[in-house]
Amino acid sequence: MKIQFNNDREYDIIAIGRACIDLNAAEYNRPMEETMTFIKYVGGSPANIAIGGAKLGLKAGFIGKISDDQHGRFIKKYMNDVGIDTSNIVVDKEGHKVGLTFTEIKSPEECSILMYREEVADLYLTPSEVNENYIRKSKILLVSGTALAKSPSREAVLKAVALAKKNDVKVIFELDYRPYSWASADETAVYYSLVAELADVVIGTRDEYDVMENRTDGKNEETINYLFNHSPELIVIKHGVEGSYAYTKSGETFKGQAYKTKVLKTFGAGDSYASAFLYALITGKDIETALKFGSASASIVVSKHSSSEAMPTVEEIEELITVNA
Amino acid sequence: MKIQFNNDREYDIIAIGRACIDLNAAEYNRPMEETMTFIKYVGGSPANIAIGGAKLGLKAGFIGKISDDQHGRFIKKYMNDVGIDTSNIVVDKEGHKVGLTFTEIKSPEECSILMYREEVADLYLTPSEVNENYIRKSKILLVSGTALAKSPSREAVLKAVALAKKNDVKVIFELDYRPYSWASADETAVYYSLVAELADVVIGTRDEYDVMENRTDGKNEETINYLFNHSPELIVIKHGVEGSYAYTKSGETFKGQAYKTKVLKTFGAGDSYASAFLYALITGKDIETALKFGSASASIVVSKHSSSEAMPTVEEIEELITVNA
Amino acid sequence: MKIQFNNDREYDIIAIGRACIDLNAAEYNRPMEETMTFIKYVGGSPANIAIGGAKLGLKAGFIGKISDDQHGRFIKKYMNDVGIDTSNIVVDKEGHKVGLTFTEIKSPEECSILMYREEVADLYLTPSEVNENYIRKSKILLVSGTALAKSPSREAVLKAVALAKKNDVKVIFELDYRPYSWASADETAVYYSLVAELADVVIGTRDEYDVMENRTDGKNEETINYLFNHSPELIVIKHGVEGSYAYTKSGETFKGQAYKTKVLKTFGAGDSYASAFLYALITGKDIETALKFGSASASIVVSKHSSSEAMPTVEEIEELITVNA
Amino acid sequence: MKIQFNNDREYDIIAIGRACIDLNAAEYNRPMEETMTFIKYVGGSPANIAIGGAKLGLKAGFIGKISDDQHGRFIKKYMNDVGIDTSNIVVDKEGHKVGLTFTEIKSPEECSILMYREEVADLYLTPSEVNENYIRKSKILLVSGTALAKSPSREAVLKAVALAKKNDVKVIFELDYRPYSWASADETAVYYSLVAELADVVIGTRDEYDVMENRTDGKNEETINYLFNHSPELIVIKHGVEGSYAYTKSGETFKGQAYKTKVLKTFGAGDSYASAFLYALITGKDIETALKFGSASASIVVSKHSSSEAMPTVEEIEELITVNA
Repeated sequence: MKIQFNNDREYDIIAIGRACIDLNAAEYNRPMEETMTFIKYVGGSPANIAIGGAKLGLKAGFIGKISDDQHGRFIKKYMNDVGIDTSNIVVDKEGHKVGLTFTEIKSPEECSILMYREEVADLYLTPSEVNENYIRKSKILLVSGTALAKSPSREAVLKAVALAKKNDVKVIFELDYRPYSWASADETAVYYSLVAELADVVIGTRDEYDVMENRTDGKNEETINYLFNHSPELIVIKHGVEGSYAYTKSGETFKGQAYKTKVLKTFGAGDSYASAFLYALITGKDIETALKFGSASASIVVSKHSSSEAMPTVEEIEELITVNA
Repeated sequence: MKIQFNNDREYDIIAIGRACIDLNAAEYNRPMEETMTFIKYVGGSPANIAIGGAKLGLKAGFIGKISDDQHGRFIKKYMNDVGIDTSNIVVDKEGHKVGLTFTEIKSPEECSILMYREEVADLYLTPSEVNENYIRKSKILLVSGTALAKSPSREAVLKAVALAKKNDVKVIFELDYRPYSWASADETAVYYSLVAELADVVIGTRDEYDVMENRTDGKNEETINYLFNHSPELIVIKHGVEGSYAYTKSGETFKGQAYKTKVLKTFGAGDSYASAFLYALITGKDIETALKFGSASASIVVSKHSSSEAMPTVEEIEELITVNA
Repeated sequence: MKIQFNNDREYDIIAIGRACIDLNAAEYNRPMEETMTFIKYVGGSPANIAIGGAKLGLKAGFIGKISDDQHGRFIKKYMNDVGIDTSNIVVDKEGHKVGLTFTEIKSPEECSILMYREEVADLYLTPSEVNENYIRKSKILLVSGTALAKSPSREAVLKAVALAKKNDVKVIFELDYRPYSWASADETAVYYSLVAELADVVIGTRDEYDVMENRTDGKNEETINYLFNHSPELIVIKHGVEGSYAYTKSGETFKGQAYKTKVLKTFGAGDSYASAFLYALITGKDIETALKFGSASASIVVSKHSSSEAMPTVEEIEELITVNA
Repeated sequence: MKIQFNNDREYDIIAIGRACIDLNAAEYNRPMEETMTFIKYVGGSPANIAIGGAKLGLKAGFIGKISDDQHGRFIKKYMNDVGIDTSNIVVDKEGHKVGLTFTEIKSPEECSILMYREEVADLYLTPSEVNENYIRKSKILLVSGTALAKSPSREAVLKAVALAKKNDVKVIFELDYRPYSWASADETAVYYSLVAELADVVIGTRDEYDVMENRTDGKNEETINYLFNHSPELIVIKHGVEGSYAYTKSGETFKGQAYKTKVLKTFGAGDSYASAFLYALITGKDIETALKFGSASASIVVSKHSSSEAMPTVEEIEELITVNA
């Protein structure tokens, strides 16, 4: 099975949600308390996916809200420089700051993060800042689950999803669950299932699907039975080192393997996976190849220092796949 | 056309949303500033509809949150006394009060109201307080638009709608727009269209549909073209004294006339309309008759002092219809 | 001892704080749940004291914030009609409502109240709405403790106290403790002691002084030792039916007796006490007489239906004192 | 004139207020947008003053609230390591983070900063976390104006000031005005004058005194006339490169000169000034010498990379004073 996209669209992918700052430890093998130097990168799941897509050659756009300060200007310039259309990135005029994520690089197994997400600009995107004329120019609208955590960003995303569906833009829902911003598990479950039911493709870890279903120990079989009763035609469920599964509404199941690599840190894996997986779908590759692209991209990023700057090229991905074939 | 209900359900109708206190002027023909005495009634659109339904003989239940004080206890007792099941009315334990509505009775054309709706208990209903086992016992879930105005009530209602659909309970969406509680017109439009698209029956004034569409001067034709692309099978649009229209998905249009009466005050008209209209549908009457029931009930209530206490019996409604036939 | 006032001032007393609506049960001897009719009065401790003072012939002014609605207009008109200068009453332009107090009249011992104090207009008075030119026209600034409960009213009052002291206006601090609005006992204690240390006269119940000292079972001796180290020259501590004590910095102690009466309800006692006590001080009576005036006024008000409308005249007070001499 | 301290106290100085993280640009001569690497230090005015004092040999303590995370632990360890008593630093249990200050080092004249101060832990210090037994062990309580910006920190500081006065601990008020956290200029003026009137020593820039007086173009003469009517016995007003003035209640005026230095960045000047000025007072030096200590310390810190780590020793200060004598 292949997902069919509207090929007459100007953009391959428009992502909506947060663009933030990552401050990654410059010193390795020590806890954050002892880390004295941090290096600045653009971060945030949908921003990383757009950056990853752009580096792979996709025509990408971004809808979001950034701060009217030094960090906001850095983000916009960086995204512009990698070729992302930033015309629909709004500058906040009420003093909200962009989110921050400090990371430590203690060991491949332990990389704690420390997030600053109070009153962040990205969650102040309003429905009136979401433009139908922009969304309908794209093949894909990529929605990050975190953007549903608070009003008015929540409503901006719900409006974007409605406009995408009205204009035959495929909705990709990356669950991207960050407990920090949410009021309650009940609330998360309400919006995650609402948007998952409306999406065309849903991507997440098994744990994230459990959040959507407000349960523990969920089963893939039950999840896909539930979601295939609604809009989704493709569901990707990731099980960490055990690999990932792609299910199609028509009944197929595909299994993807993780590639071995020398892991520096684990963050960034999900975003690089999503960008390469979507790149493969958009360029007409089959689902099995798309799973390989996702895994290869994730494997490259976890061996490097950043999430955004480390996003690989198509050549790097293909080489890794070939080497491991 | 007739709406088909699940006849093996214990409840005819379960309403979700606010139950409040009305304080109606005891002195007529003067502005509220000069009104010194007020009489207390139960109020709030979904509570009034449940009360109206119960007085007509429907088996009704209610999902909502009330204050842990004298007003909350009055509301629960009153609803119990008219035969409503109150087992799913939750008592707030965080000090939230029930809403208040002071009314003046200045003239049939001028009846200003004054609402106390800050941090009211009804908007603190949480998703975890909505029970699937309760909802699936009903033919109808009646949703009031105001309950969507704020979290966590908003999520409680979205969950209730999802549970109703999952369990084949008809969702009736009474738009019931009250600008007071909403953050923005954009936000209202997002949730009104979201729930209207999921509902089986939508009832509102032309102005309320304009709120849903975030526009002015909307046209019935466009509204029904939009909504019939989604779940609704019956749409009622009220045009005040010019009467109301009922549209079916199968293409029929019915017009209902307002009955002449001696108007004391205008509030309460919408709730009495909805309760009698739904009573007629549930008891298997055709849509034309249901429109008459709605108009007759409204005409009776606007001639009396309260919204809840004044709800008519089936005999009163039928007599009025016969007299005006 | 007599308190010395600046006799060249235009106003005898300017009160700062809340003006609200009381909704008193029109039906007696029943709980509020069964009370169906309520009668509207102006309420709120500093408003009642100003009204009481005006009825006794004092030239009174008021600084406060009221709602831009029917209740706000009623309050302003009522205060104007009893002769209070309302030029410094500000009308809220952000939708805040005036507070409400529902009362039941169950028995002389049991009169529960139900308060609506969420986001009330009086607590939104800002420092910039407090005018030095107004305050310096008065002999007395009467400060109600409840006005310290939240910002920006808290800062408006702190500014008013600073301006009063700068302009040789006597500061009377009526502790008027209402737990509802306060974040914590610690916070109350901080502001109560701050203002009590700056005041010239402090009036409150023994329980309210305990709140100021953040303790239980406080002793009058310790309280006056503490406060007389600061600005106060007169301290009144009320012990309910056991009567009240007035202490002077120069070392005198006076005891006041409560007058027997047929009690209808207990609310309103403190405000009527304060207004008559201050009237006596301002008109040059000695402290013993002032205590009698306070007790007589309280005894009259608790036998009547309202707190404000029931405020007695000088003749009524003097007659009661004479009868009981 | 010399300030007299209680020499039998265990601590020379206890500071109350914020302890934060500074993230200083590791790359010089470029705007923050282009700065990619940041170095972490402890920051926050009262923390810096305590650190500066401890490096000069004072026995220092700190009252404040830090986050329960990697940054909070770093701060506490750093302060411990320089010899500050941290027994009264409270760890926040509600998820509040410590404040952050990103700095650029563009040129000696231009060093923009970017602050993260939303819902920061330091402003959640409560009155109940301020202990009388601790405060009364100190000669000095150093109060930072920023700690007055929000409740409950505001009340914690007001309580600390009251306890200091009750226990004969000198209150030093460092105005330390940061507009970011304040609701309005009116509010700042209310609390700045309230605490300045209660303090023994007030230190600030001319601009900060204007904030206290809620005016522009204030005059030193008027400021000291006002404050010497209340508690202060020593007032320091800084005029940047033009030097600073110290005024005593007994009528003396002293002028301090700024020392020439090679400026790297300007932040940190005020804190290093205060710590060395107070060190000199506490160790019994006269006011003229204290002014020199303050200027010398500031001159050393602005030539170095951090605010806290760069705090000088007594020897460094004395050498600079000697060289410039």
